[in-house]
Amino acid sequence: MNVGLIGTGVVGSGAVWIYQKNRAHWEAQSAETARLKAVCDLDFSRCPYDLTEFQRTHDWRSLLTDPEIEVVVELIGGEEPARTMIAESLQAGKHVVTANKMVLAKHGKALLDLAAENKVSLLFEAAVAGAIPVIAPMCSSLRPNQIQSVFGIVNGTTNFILTRMHQSDADFQDVLAEAQRLGYAEADPSSDIEGRDSLYKICLLAATAFHTQVSVEDVLVEGISAITAADIQWANKRGQVIKLVAMARWNDARMELRVHPVILEGSHPLAAVNDVYNAVFVRGDCCGDLLFCGRGAGGTPTASAVWADILALANRAAYRVAPLVPAGLFPKEEMVSSFRIRLRVTEQISLVAEACRVFAEHQVGILEVVRAGSGEDGELVIATTPTQEGIKSRLLEALALQPWVKEIAGVLRFGL
Amino acid sequence: MNVGLIGTGVVGSGAVWIYQKNRAHWEAQSAETARLKAVCDLDFSRCPYDLTEFQRTHDWRSLLTDPEIEVVVELIGGEEPARTMIAESLQAGKHVVTANKMVLAKHGKALLDLAAENKVSLLFEAAVAGAIPVIAPMCSSLRPNQIQSVFGIVNGTTNFILTRMHQSDADFQDVLAEAQRLGYAEADPSSDIEGRDSLYKICLLAATAFHTQVSVEDVLVEGISAITAADIQWANKRGQVIKLVAMARWNDARMELRVHPVILEGSHPLAAVNDVYNAVFVRGDCCGDLLFCGRGAGGTPTASAVWADILALANRAAYRVAPLVPAGLFPKEEMVSSFRIRLRVTEQISLVAEACRVFAEHQVGILEVVRAGSGEDGELVIATTPTQEGIKSRLLEALALQPWVKEIAGVLRFGL
Repeated sequence: MNVGLIGTGVVGSGAVWIYQKNRAHWEAQSAETARLKAVCDLDFSRCPYDLTEFQRTHDWRSLLTDPEIEVVVELIGGEEPARTMIAESLQAGKHVVTANKMVLAKHGKALLDLAAENKVSLLFEAAVAGAIPVIAPMCSSLRPNQIQSVFGIVNGTTNFILTRMHQSDADFQDVLAEAQRLGYAEADPSSDIEGRDSLYKICLLAATAFHTQVSVEDVLVEGISAITAADIQWANKRGQVIKLVAMARWNDARMELRVHPVILEGSHPLAAVNDVYNAVFVRGDCCGDLLFCGRGAGGTPTASAVWADILALANRAAYRVAPLVPAGLFPKEEMVSSFRIRLRVTEQISLVAEACRVFAEHQVGILEVVRAGSGEDGELVIATTPTQEGIKSRLLEALALQPWVKEIAGVLRFGL
Repeated sequence: MNVGLIGTGVVGSGAVWIYQKNRAHWEAQSAETARLKAVCDLDFSRCPYDLTEFQRTHDWRSLLTDPEIEVVVELIGGEEPARTMIAESLQAGKHVVTANKMVLAKHGKALLDLAAENKVSLLFEAAVAGAIPVIAPMCSSLRPNQIQSVFGIVNGTTNFILTRMHQSDADFQDVLAEAQRLGYAEADPSSDIEGRDSLYKICLLAATAFHTQVSVEDVLVEGISAITAADIQWANKRGQVIKLVAMARWNDARMELRVHPVILEGSHPLAAVNDVYNAVFVRGDCCGDLLFCGRGAGGTPTASAVWADILALANRAAYRVAPLVPAGLFPKEEMVSSFRIRLRVTEQISLVAEACRVFAEHQVGILEVVRAGSGEDGELVIATTPTQEGIKSRLLEALALQPWVKEIAGVLRFGL
């Protein structure tokens, strides 16, 4: 089976490296195998490996007209021209393997339908959680199950930043700068830190687990840029950890999708997933809770998932993503979380009584009230019982109007 | 695709339950599906589910002569007649799905060769780590990799016992009795506690990861029955955890296979895997370290893996275990570990100097010496640098002969 590769950046170069290193190894184990025939890029200078054994082209459409090529691998990222490349490849009767979470999250249903029409496969293990096998196992090993929820840490950049904040008590901006220096965060880190990367990935996990087509605009998404050193210190003192978590689950016959930071107890399995590691929990009605952990990013780990998809096609053993059908989406306003609300407050005797009155008026239960600091640094920290998003928003509006509230200093969900 | 099931015990009943609950769900997603046509047992009374929709038979050979049946599922366990059932089924041209680790560890190569001769599949995801997908991912998602090591906690009974010992400071025998009451340990628990169950499983993991045929007799195996409350207390005081670990890895172009308890730091990912949970690490040259966690036993989780194999066959997308070839085995005597040796000793001033002399004579490095207790309870606890098994054995013989050594109270490996 001949393969054409578009994009020789970090992941594309990783794919070349794996091919040159391990081809003989996997050919020894299987009659049918895959040959990387052609590579395509506008500029091959980013790839540190010798490409002379491959056809090299600047014209991606030339891969589509080559009748020998059965698989097109799209590794350029971004929405366009990647979407067009994938669509035209499928229309040309080529299987497509991609790591492009954005295109799939936004256009997944149309592209999967196009693949089905043209009787080819569109595979995307590499688009979620790097080297960790999770799309294929959900389609194959977990098929006997009705999956109930999928959630976890699916963005390495934010996990690295949060890990460093916990270790150093440093502020978000300082740690972000360090992550950029180390190459763990991009020059424009907004997609990672605002949660959009996690959003795309949870859409793909939901599509695979539940065969649902969701619109990315409808998902509850909060990033980590508002998290302060004070939030981290509060968590550290209590043996807790703040993680950016993405979640998809059935709730009242509708799909609940959310991406936001959450405070976890130190004993929670996700609390130990640090640095650029990713971890995905899958809960099925027969298998119970399963946890898949590993490197969520990086050229070689991601390219390992790319080759897994190619070799599955070569061995005619590719997993299949069932057709996506529309699913009712659980409304953001009704999603329930427990919140920890930190208020900067003026000093007055009746502070706790005043706060309790406002919470009671909004029918928000209080789990814990702690008065911390004094004078200028006086704070009131209140943990709520499970509360709907809509009610929480109205509570915060009311709190902001109280004469004893100087500022709403932080609002974080806690527990999973 | 029609299926015949042999054995309606705990796992077999789980398979019936899953089929009756989720068949409509998985049929909605796939054109080809699997029908459970016949069940076979000597006594159906152990199965709590209604079997009237299936053909019922006491004669397993009748499944082999039924031309409609393409898959035989063997879930009776034990060596015979299970081995004969599997072999004759393969010879009759039936695919076989089994959870039988003992038969596969002892006769895997012969049975896989028989499957290849008859152009059928022999699948065994359910034989290792219950519901956790690990055999199929190694054969498919991780195929681009050269796997370097596979290790983890693969026996739920011993993990439950060790977890309870850490929580309660209770002795092995008391906790074993509790585990038997709760159904987590069998009436004859020797296969679990002596490490043979873990041994069979690591042989299957090694066969899958490295395509090597190993003889179970050649593996270093130690169980947990010698672990005392004193060992647990020592570990607890230091924030460490004792786990029964099974490991397979390349070492100097040979396969190193071992099963034994080991002291882990509390921060090690395996330290948090408690109760009947299992966890398997796989290290590949491209994907890096991956961790798979979940329920390692129980009827329904194990049956989930059984149905995963059946549905893979029905969808003509079954993973393939590459043919097993003989591999050089790394000799037990040369395997290297760090040891923590607890000696009951007489009181004398020069105790540490005497001990250091014996260790130096055997060229065993000392990492730490701690003198604990006093009088009758006097102990010397010595942690070594990495030491070969053979040298450790000769050191222990020499220590036993020292006049100041009353007893070698405990020897445990530490670190992974």
